[in-house]
Amino acid sequence: MMQKICIMGLGYIGLPTAIVAAEHGFEVVGFDIDIQRVERINNYDPVIQEPESIERLQPLIASGAFRATTILEAADCFLIAVPTPFKEDKKADVSYVIAATQAIAQVLKKDDVVIVESTVPVGLTDDCARLLEEKTGLKAGEDFFVAHCPERVLPGKIFFELVNNPRIIGGVNPESVTRTKLFYKQFVKGQLYLTNATTAEMVKLVENSSRDVAIAFANQVAAMAYATRLDPFEVIALANKHPRVNILNPSCGVGGHCIAVDPWFLVETFPEQSQLLQTARTVNDAKPLQVVSLTRSWIQEWQERNEGIPTVLVLGLTYKADVDDMRESPALAIAEKLQKYSDINLLVTEPNVAQTTLESLFNDAVVSLQEGIDCADIIICLVPHKQFKDIDHSATRNKKILDFCGLTYKPHVETSEQEALFWPANSLQSMTPFEPYKAGSIHKTIFDKEFF
Amino acid sequence: MMQKICIMGLGYIGLPTAIVAAEHGFEVVGFDIDIQRVERINNYDPVIQEPESIERLQPLIASGAFRATTILEAADCFLIAVPTPFKEDKKADVSYVIAATQAIAQVLKKDDVVIVESTVPVGLTDDCARLLEEKTGLKAGEDFFVAHCPERVLPGKIFFELVNNPRIIGGVNPESVTRTKLFYKQFVKGQLYLTNATTAEMVKLVENSSRDVAIAFANQVAAMAYATRLDPFEVIALANKHPRVNILNPSCGVGGHCIAVDPWFLVETFPEQSQLLQTARTVNDAKPLQVVSLTRSWIQEWQERNEGIPTVLVLGLTYKADVDDMRESPALAIAEKLQKYSDINLLVTEPNVAQTTLESLFNDAVVSLQEGIDCADIIICLVPHKQFKDIDHSATRNKKILDFCGLTYKPHVETSEQEALFWPANSLQSMTPFEPYKAGSIHKTIFDKEFF
Repeated sequence: MMQKICIMGLGYIGLPTAIVAAEHGFEVVGFDIDIQRVERINNYDPVIQEPESIERLQPLIASGAFRATTILEAADCFLIAVPTPFKEDKKADVSYVIAATQAIAQVLKKDDVVIVESTVPVGLTDDCARLLEEKTGLKAGEDFFVAHCPERVLPGKIFFELVNNPRIIGGVNPESVTRTKLFYKQFVKGQLYLTNATTAEMVKLVENSSRDVAIAFANQVAAMAYATRLDPFEVIALANKHPRVNILNPSCGVGGHCIAVDPWFLVETFPEQSQLLQTARTVNDAKPLQVVSLTRSWIQEWQERNEGIPTVLVLGLTYKADVDDMRESPALAIAEKLQKYSDINLLVTEPNVAQTTLESLFNDAVVSLQEGIDCADIIICLVPHKQFKDIDHSATRNKKILDFCGLTYKPHVETSEQEALFWPANSLQSMTPFEPYKAGSIHKTIFDKEFF
Repeated sequence: MMQKICIMGLGYIGLPTAIVAAEHGFEVVGFDIDIQRVERINNYDPVIQEPESIERLQPLIASGAFRATTILEAADCFLIAVPTPFKEDKKADVSYVIAATQAIAQVLKKDDVVIVESTVPVGLTDDCARLLEEKTGLKAGEDFFVAHCPERVLPGKIFFELVNNPRIIGGVNPESVTRTKLFYKQFVKGQLYLTNATTAEMVKLVENSSRDVAIAFANQVAAMAYATRLDPFEVIALANKHPRVNILNPSCGVGGHCIAVDPWFLVETFPEQSQLLQTARTVNDAKPLQVVSLTRSWIQEWQERNEGIPTVLVLGLTYKADVDDMRESPALAIAEKLQKYSDINLLVTEPNVAQTTLESLFNDAVVSLQEGIDCADIIICLVPHKQFKDIDHSATRNKKILDFCGLTYKPHVETSEQEALFWPANSLQSMTPFEPYKAGSIHKTIFDKEFF
C-alpha cells in the first residue's frame, strides 16, 4: 500500500504536488535542504508566488497532513522535484537529482517507488535506478520501482494543470509503471500514457525543443521581414492562412527555465543528431542583441530628423506576457543594454513587477504606463502584457513605435465577405517605423507614400 | 473589361488554371514554347497526369473557349505560370519568368494586367514591373497593373483547390490589387487576402520553408531516437499529446519541387537571416544517405546471424505517399544506392508507377507487393502508400522490418478509460529491428527481453 509520500524539493513543482497529494489522502512529507524554506512552509508561508497556494497549504499544515522537513525519513514513495539547470558549458547540472537519489538510498526499503519529475537528460532515470541498486543491494524493477514522470505545468495555473493535464509515466520496467501509476491515479484526471523511462525523458526534452525551433523560425522570418522593411506579423498572419502552416509570433527572445535550457540536454547527448536544435538556440540567444541593434539604428534615424536626446520607453520586462517573473528575461537584458547608452533618455514600465524591485534596477527611469507614453518619443514594445493592449492609440500618433512582440499589429480589415485587406498601411503607417520596401528604381515610382 | 486571358506556361499550374478560367467565361489562350505540347493540347490531350483534366479540356478545345499557341498575342490579362527551378549553386533560376515578361512586353497595352503565379524570390514581381516599364514606356500601377498571386494547389486535387483555396493577391500598388482580383473573383470561392507584392512573395516562400524546418525537426528527433534505439514514431506520438506541440512524422527525405527548393530562394536573398533554414535543408538533404547507412548496418546485423545473401524489399519509390511522381524522390535515390550493393538481393515494389517505367530503372528487381513480401528477409518501408497499410502482418512475422515512414507504427493500446500503453513492445517487438536502449550495466538487468 502506498500511504506515505516524500517530495524531494519544495519549489514550483514539488510544493504544489505535495499539497495536491496531501489533499487526496496521502500522508505527505516535504524534504528540502533549505532550512529557512522548510520553517517558512511549516509556518503556513507557501514561499512560491502561485495562486491558491496559501489557502490550500494552511489547512494541510494545520491538520498535519503535510509537513516540511530537512531530515529525510522513510516513505512508500519518493518524488524527486529538484532543479536541473545547465552549467556554463551548456551541459546539464544533474547534481541535485543525484544528491536526492543518494539521500533516498539511505532510507529505501522493499516495494518503495521512486519517481523522477525533474527534467533530466536521456538515460538518467536508469542511472538513478542503478545508483539505488548499488547503494542498497536491492534490485530495481523487482525490489523497488523507478519511473520518470515529467512535469508539465504552466506557472499561474499549476494547481489546475497538476490535476487535469495528461501525464506520461515512463518506468525502468513495466512493473515500475504499474506501481507508479497508483500514485498519479489518486489525483490526475488527465490521460495517463505509459511507456519506458528513456522514451519519457526524450519526449519531455523533444516537446520543449520543438517550441524552441518553432520560435527560432518565427525569429528568422522576422529578421528577413525587417531586412525588407515588411511587417513580420503581417507575413506570418498571411502564411498561417495556409491550412497546414502554423508559425508562432516572433518575440524579443526566449527566456524562462525550460525552452531555453532543455534543448541543450539533447545537444549534450546527441551532438551529431541535433544541428537544427543548436542553430535554433543560437538564433534565439542572438535575438535580444538584434533587438538592441535594430533599436539603435532606429534611434539614429530619429536623431537625424530631430533635435536633442530622444526619450525611449521600454514596454515590459518580464520573460513572457502576463507573468511577474523577470528571471532569464530577454526583455530585461535588452533594457539593461539600452540603459548604458547616454544619448537617449530611457524609461521603463512593467505593471506586473513591484515598483521597489524595478527601482533597484532602473532607479528613476521607472514610470507608469501613462507617464511613459506621454513623455516618449520612441516606444519599444517587448512584452505583450494585457495592460498594454488598451493603450489609447491617439496618444501615440506622433511617436515612433518599434514593436518586437506584435502588440500593435492589427491583423486585417475585412473589406467584404470574401476579401480581407492586408495592405501594410494598416499596421505600418503610424505604428512602426518601416517604410515600404524600396529595392530598385521602380520602387520609387510605385511605392510612393501617396498610395498608403 | 477583362475578357481575354493569356496563360504563359501550360504545366501543372498553367493548364488547369486555363481550363478553369475558360469554364468561367473568359476567352483563354495558352502560350507555351514547346510546340509538341501545344499541338497535343489542341488535339485534346491534357499532357499532365491530373484527374478530370481530359474531360474538362475536351469541350473547351472543341468550342474554342480555350486554345494553345506558340505565338504570343494581345490579351487583357497575362498570367505567368512557368517553372522557377534552382541552379547548381542553389540560386533561383528566374530566366523563364524574365523571358515570359519580355515576351509580354511586346504585346502589352494600356490597362492590361500581368499576374505572376510562379514562385519567385522576394522582389522579383517589382522587377518584372520595372522591366515592363522599361520595354514599353508605360507606367506600372497606372497604365498597366502587376501582381503576385502564388499558387498553392495539391497535385491530384488541383481542380478542386484552384476554386476552393484561399488566395493571396499582392500588387505592386493598391490599384494593381483591385484589377487583379477581378480575375480571381470570377472563379475563386476561397477568401482573397489582399497585400503588396513583396509580402505575397515572402509569404509563399515562408510557408514552404516552415514545412521544411518542421520536417527537419522530425528527422532530427528520428536520428536521436535511432541512436538510443527508441521508436521515433512513439516519441513523436507521445510528444504530440502536449496541447501546443505538433511534430510531423519523419520520412526518408524531402522530395518534390516546392519544399526542397523554396527555402533556397530565401537563403539567397537573406543569407544572414536564414541560418535555421540552411541547417534544415542540410538535415533533410542528408536523410536519404542516413537511411542507406542505417539500412547497411542493419543488413550487416542480419548477415552476422544468418547465412547467404539477404533479399531486401524496398516499399515505395515516389516522392510522397499516394502519388505517381518519382521526380526528386528520396525513396528512388535510396533504392538506386542500394541497387549498387552486390551483397544483397534487392527487390522494389511501387504500386503507383507503371511496370515498364519501373523496369527501365530496376530491371527484374521489380515485383508485386505480395511477391516481395513472400521473398524478403528484410523489408524497408520508405513511402506509406495506402496499399501498404493492408499488408497482412502474419506474413511479415519472421522478417526484419526497417520502417522509415511510420507505416507499421501502431500508436498505442488503450488499456482502460484513462490509460494508454505506449510501451515500445507494441511497435518494436516484431516490426522493427530495435532492441531496447542499453546504456549502462543497469540496462542489462532491467531491460531484459522477458519484460517485452
